[in-house]
Amino acid sequence: METDVLVIGGSAGGILAALSAKKTYKDKKVTVVRMGERVMVPCGIPYIFGTLKDTSKNVIPDAMLTNAGIDLIIDEVLSIDRENKKVNAKKSGEISYKKLILATGSLPIVPTFIPGHDLENVFTIKKDEEYLKFVQQKINEAQDVVVIGGGFIGVEMAEQVQLLGKNVTIIEVADKLLWQAFDPEYSDMAEATLKEHGITIKTNTKVTKLIGDTKVKEVELHTGERIKADVVILAMGVKPNTKLAEAAGIKLNERGAITVDEYMRTNDPDIFAVGDCAEKKCFFTRKNVPILLASTAANEAKIAGVNVFQLRLVRENKGTISAFSTKIYNTAFAAAGLTETQAKAEGFDIVIGEFSTMDKHPGTLPNAKSVKIKLIFSRYSGVILGAQIAGGENVGEMINILSLAIQKGTTASELNTFQVATHPLLTSSPVSYPINSAALDAMSKI
Amino acid sequence: METDVLVIGGSAGGILAALSAKKTYKDKKVTVVRMGERVMVPCGIPYIFGTLKDTSKNVIPDAMLTNAGIDLIIDEVLSIDRENKKVNAKKSGEISYKKLILATGSLPIVPTFIPGHDLENVFTIKKDEEYLKFVQQKINEAQDVVVIGGGFIGVEMAEQVQLLGKNVTIIEVADKLLWQAFDPEYSDMAEATLKEHGITIKTNTKVTKLIGDTKVKEVELHTGERIKADVVILAMGVKPNTKLAEAAGIKLNERGAITVDEYMRTNDPDIFAVGDCAEKKCFFTRKNVPILLASTAANEAKIAGVNVFQLRLVRENKGTISAFSTKIYNTAFAAAGLTETQAKAEGFDIVIGEFSTMDKHPGTLPNAKSVKIKLIFSRYSGVILGAQIAGGENVGEMINILSLAIQKGTTASELNTFQVATHPLLTSSPVSYPINSAALDAMSKI
Repeated sequence: METDVLVIGGSAGGILAALSAKKTYKDKKVTVVRMGERVMVPCGIPYIFGTLKDTSKNVIPDAMLTNAGIDLIIDEVLSIDRENKKVNAKKSGEISYKKLILATGSLPIVPTFIPGHDLENVFTIKKDEEYLKFVQQKINEAQDVVVIGGGFIGVEMAEQVQLLGKNVTIIEVADKLLWQAFDPEYSDMAEATLKEHGITIKTNTKVTKLIGDTKVKEVELHTGERIKADVVILAMGVKPNTKLAEAAGIKLNERGAITVDEYMRTNDPDIFAVGDCAEKKCFFTRKNVPILLASTAANEAKIAGVNVFQLRLVRENKGTISAFSTKIYNTAFAAAGLTETQAKAEGFDIVIGEFSTMDKHPGTLPNAKSVKIKLIFSRYSGVILGAQIAGGENVGEMINILSLAIQKGTTASELNTFQVATHPLLTSSPVSYPINSAALDAMSKI
Repeated sequence: METDVLVIGGSAGGILAALSAKKTYKDKKVTVVRMGERVMVPCGIPYIFGTLKDTSKNVIPDAMLTNAGIDLIIDEVLSIDRENKKVNAKKSGEISYKKLILATGSLPIVPTFIPGHDLENVFTIKKDEEYLKFVQQKINEAQDVVVIGGGFIGVEMAEQVQLLGKNVTIIEVADKLLWQAFDPEYSDMAEATLKEHGITIKTNTKVTKLIGDTKVKEVELHTGERIKADVVILAMGVKPNTKLAEAAGIKLNERGAITVDEYMRTNDPDIFAVGDCAEKKCFFTRKNVPILLASTAANEAKIAGVNVFQLRLVRENKGTISAFSTKIYNTAFAAAGLTETQAKAEGFDIVIGEFSTMDKHPGTLPNAKSVKIKLIFSRYSGVILGAQIAGGENVGEMINILSLAIQKGTTASELNTFQVATHPLLTSSPVSYPINSAALDAMSKI
């Protein structure tokens, strides 16, 4: 079998790389090879449990690829032969390529240092539909569920499992949940929301052991306390899935991610890597960072797709800005760029702008909700470095105004006076629009 | 009485000018003088009728000003004495100022050329609370309501009055509703939504006469047709309220708006003008345009406030980008910048990018709604000139990503690859994020 562009991996990164390549090079044959019969919407996985209640409702339709004229193969790639520019697949045999894009994603971290991590009913959150169906069944049968790890996946899983009426505990080793994306005051809001709904949160807490005969029964903490657990969910982060690349001699960095340049090219000029398997650099510091987010993967996939045959744009991948959003019960939380804590740790002299108001105007309108925003600026240049918002659902797009602002090097003064569309039923008032007002707050301190 | 900064007018423009001035020049005395006891949220006015049902729920709280240390006077300014830098107010007498900011707003256009325009139960939409209470009472008593003018105020009023169970007709002289902000396909969507809810729409239609003895009874069209009307709402646009400025010899432009420079200064170096009473220039063409929107007023007010004693930033007011949003029943509509029609009329060589998808992911999630987007780019530079979106409520903030993009001269390529936060419950999928995808569509045509 022959193709012009071969993409290995069919999740967000692989799909977007293929779509961008096909849209840019219309006469080229673009092929995606992936392992699963169906692809789970990755960020939708927690919502299978309490909201969708069926993995079938969380599928990325293949029509997205096939309608665009992309070939799709369900198969497992066993090895890459770089010299002859072909891969060997389990069922299809040899597939030769002109350009290869690796989008092999990530795998959940399993804490092998915790005794009992391999007991029954101890699960990670994999992207595999059959596995998720099994986890769902076990969660439905459980009464006590312990989530280890208070990052996004942990928090979202905890909320969804609690919605099923289960007794849920989150255990986090750091002093706050969601500490990678938010400053303490926002983490506190998230924790308060979870606690209001009966979820137990134990921060500054280590798990020392999972206890049970064949099935897990209890979680032992460093304090000696034991918590009852019918199911344990390990949400301790993910690591790049790079076995295939490594075996083919493609260079990895010190974190085990595939080393890439600004066009997502690996050390092999015909092989690109995008998404969770590829190296991430921080937008602000250019340091390698372990930030694996859909926003970053999507950006990289599009860059690889557009530049796969010919460089079309200069210095494309400017690094991850860690743009992120979630919803915990009725409150949406979103962040982009550096937190105050991170900016200070990196040595930035910063100015903070803060504001809170209602997300509709007048605030007496049905479903109006309070919205709270924090912007972080470089004092010297006035340029925005980071943003955090908590409020109603429109926070999900409001953060993207700030994502763009960060990527375009926007100043506090520009953010204070930029024109925004406002409407009573859709946004805060023009008189107290959160971004404008928080920017003014910062300006008054510069 | 003496003040450092006197602001005439207490609606959005006046409030924001005062707040920005006070926040920037903390030791200066800032005073707002306005006529009404209470200020209506201007964009909230249509929602008094069908949603809030009480003008008391549509009030901008004075605490916004007083908490910021701004003085508030309820009074009518009768004249401005520029030579002695003071104004004469009805109750307060003389108030002297160092800097004066005019935020006198606009007045609804009354079509004096239509016979019967002065009959009882023929109303404009003024910002006066007592007047609005009276209109509300008459609408509540009515069965047949005719709205003349199919711009935003007309459409929003029609929707709200229909929600009360009234029989509503919109009459528009142009061939589409909302033609100033949207291209025909978006206007058609809005019209279809209104029609689905039983509103009658007559475009390409002129009103020749309002008929009745003392009270209006019928509306006569140019076709000879007569429509029953217990209440007629005139929503034919607004004009700058500049009587006070004109009497003081402040220069007006050919449209009757107060001429201002890029810092919102009039021809008097100590007098600024902001909002609907001030001249508007188009961001793209620098032509004078009659666009009176909250987004523009807010921008101008902040510029005047910050620069009122000392210029602090270079070439501030870059002109209006006409950022706008509304919600018609369950569909939100938003636009910013030039429409395709306008861009072509101005002589731009353009490329269009379009896309539609679901506004949550997977699309099987509760309340997921389809979202449709159109982006207009300059072919030569690739820079974005305009955007239109229709979809769920998150469209209200999504348009502001594009508002910022327009103001920062962002290209299709940048909009294709900029990183966005996505979340199943809050946004479209990262694989088909509307702005990224529509930008790619445009790039494939450049």
